[in-house]
Amino acid sequence: MPAHQPIGKATMKQKVADRMQGISAFYVMELLQRAKQLEREGRDIIHMEVGEPDFPTPQGVIDAGRALLKTGDVKYTAAAGLPELRGSIAEHYRRQYGVRLDPARVFVTPGASGAFLLAFGISLNPGEHVMMADPCYPCNDNFVRLFNGHTHFVNVGSDSEYQLTADLIAQHWRPNSKGVLVASPSNPTGTLLNGEDLKGAIDQVHELGGCFYSDEIYHGLVYDRPAMSALAYSDDAFVINSFSKFFGMTGWRVGWLVVPEDFVEAAEKLAQNIFISTPTHSQYAALASFTEENLAELERRRLELKARRDFLYENLLRLGFKIACKPEGAFYVYADCSAFTDNSFDFARNLLEQEGVAVTPGRDFGEYLANKHIRFAYTASMDRMAAALIRLERFICR
Amino acid sequence: MPAHQPIGKATMKQKVADRMQGISAFYVMELLQRAKQLEREGRDIIHMEVGEPDFPTPQGVIDAGRALLKTGDVKYTAAAGLPELRGSIAEHYRRQYGVRLDPARVFVTPGASGAFLLAFGISLNPGEHVMMADPCYPCNDNFVRLFNGHTHFVNVGSDSEYQLTADLIAQHWRPNSKGVLVASPSNPTGTLLNGEDLKGAIDQVHELGGCFYSDEIYHGLVYDRPAMSALAYSDDAFVINSFSKFFGMTGWRVGWLVVPEDFVEAAEKLAQNIFISTPTHSQYAALASFTEENLAELERRRLELKARRDFLYENLLRLGFKIACKPEGAFYVYADCSAFTDNSFDFARNLLEQEGVAVTPGRDFGEYLANKHIRFAYTASMDRMAAALIRLERFICR
Repeated sequence: MPAHQPIGKATMKQKVADRMQGISAFYVMELLQRAKQLEREGRDIIHMEVGEPDFPTPQGVIDAGRALLKTGDVKYTAAAGLPELRGSIAEHYRRQYGVRLDPARVFVTPGASGAFLLAFGISLNPGEHVMMADPCYPCNDNFVRLFNGHTHFVNVGSDSEYQLTADLIAQHWRPNSKGVLVASPSNPTGTLLNGEDLKGAIDQVHELGGCFYSDEIYHGLVYDRPAMSALAYSDDAFVINSFSKFFGMTGWRVGWLVVPEDFVEAAEKLAQNIFISTPTHSQYAALASFTEENLAELERRRLELKARRDFLYENLLRLGFKIACKPEGAFYVYADCSAFTDNSFDFARNLLEQEGVAVTPGRDFGEYLANKHIRFAYTASMDRMAAALIRLERFICR
Repeated sequence: MPAHQPIGKATMKQKVADRMQGISAFYVMELLQRAKQLEREGRDIIHMEVGEPDFPTPQGVIDAGRALLKTGDVKYTAAAGLPELRGSIAEHYRRQYGVRLDPARVFVTPGASGAFLLAFGISLNPGEHVMMADPCYPCNDNFVRLFNGHTHFVNVGSDSEYQLTADLIAQHWRPNSKGVLVASPSNPTGTLLNGEDLKGAIDQVHELGGCFYSDEIYHGLVYDRPAMSALAYSDDAFVINSFSKFFGMTGWRVGWLVVPEDFVEAAEKLAQNIFISTPTHSQYAALASFTEENLAELERRRLELKARRDFLYENLLRLGFKIACKPEGAFYVYADCSAFTDNSFDFARNLLEQEGVAVTPGRDFGEYLANKHIRFAYTASMDRMAAALIRLERFICR
């Protein structure tokens, strides 16, 4: 802005920041609001759009939260999190992946949302690009935009199981690329990178001198083979995870970020400033996640989700949806609905209006073939899904 | 970055973001770590550096949190917060300040930290300046830096009760100024802007076309006269507040942001993306803050803090500290220690080492006369403060 510009109302500074032009609300919110309105009018809506299972938080975790509250002592914790929780998370990596991790690299955050804020806040400069798959989770791009970075979307299809590969990364890397974000299991596709491909992608990014951001928030929710952590292959990856999905603690808002050694000091400083700390009662409750009893309960839930996955997957195929890659993780099926429509948003809206089934249209996850895809979440019970499938069948046969 | 720059490790992209060079850890953290070490060695440390009172969370709030947890139903809430909590906050403005506020302008956030993130995220472009008082709370500047803005510090002294005024704002406004942040009661000085001066500052900023950010997180903790909300004078102010301080819910992480009508849509979009939602159990607990019973308990606490303020203020004067403005709010005394030292950081460090009393050195709050000032928090009990004052007297008479 030139120094001679007149001062006064004419400058219109009281306006929304430019970055907000590129940050969109989730399209599904429009459907969700309509769904709620229909519910208020007495309609029965089956929710297959929601990214949280119908399970309550496990009892042991609830009990730990209540016990902490009983003390009344809900003070700030250290900005990086309770030392015992950071230690438990590091121990989780040893047990689950055979990875030795210094707890000093673990930062407890307000959900994975906080982990993304921290990761990009300490690493991304304005104007730098982060490479991501299209389709992917919509917030990822918006975190990059928050810091005035740019997302470089790379179209991915079933040939790479909807994942970025070392080849794709090399091919699309640009001078202003800062790094690459990979999510395995992926939202919306539920696909995994196998260990070798994950290692290949990490090595490629690091060879290019970039940052590797590994979104592992659906780890544990895998049904055919384990998901590998980026930490198994590199000490220089940023790893985002949370207690929300596998551990069943969505509303508690507690996640974590693992940073490379060189970023520990920056993460410590930024966490102090932008969070003060992560909810104290949630952190104490999360500590109870790693008990044998709780892990057994989570295994029962995983098996339930696996059964739901199989049921939904098979029935969607039967109805004529195309599913190029059987989802192996998370709780989503990303289904090609082009046999029925060339506009998946309209399909979703009409399905809601006519049959009271809420799903998420492809455009919430990007642009590439978005109009041909619908994301179904198997976060509803078998009974509810069975009812939804009857309605869905009636809808597409209409 | 020029397009011809070679790709490869030489680009060293895996490095900390530039903004982090300007974001500092709180200096008091160094003292705090030393204090903890001394405590581990068996020393008794009196904490007068901590920004949270020794009171537990009020019982009614605890009970509400526990009741919610008992249901196990700790799911995500709407991104902007529970509708009933947004309504209660709007009602709080009616009761407390006689202000009518549309709940649609209220966004529940993860603490005031989340409110600052949201406020600057939706309004501040890289390179724009935000004016603030020096001294002020250190995170404020760092939120601005997070979004690659710049903080324009204006030295304030006792002549303006450590507050920015309409005149100071007009005098220091620059073409790239985006807005002005004011905190009343102020941290570290505990001073208030009276209603007329607050209105004058708001009007001045709006006349200049800028954004007025009003940090009201210590509202309610006032001992001589009420603090006025910016909302009493303008519908176009951003107001940051929280349940942490007055309501005694620090570790719960629940605050709020009130935005001007024109920013509602942007705030809704950004909150969805960067928070998903504020901790559910904390929101339900916060709902219990507005009961008559709880407000009566908070009034008892306010009177206790007032007594502490008077006790600390009078004793610091007696010992030879200079306090230009008697603090009227928050729980801090910002005392001039130049009778004893010309380096308040060394003073704080030596006081900790020799007498086991932890305080915050002025440099945590800016540069202006920082070496002459110490912030004492009266968040410790009368007995502990009395003990601290004996030690302090011994220290300065040594």
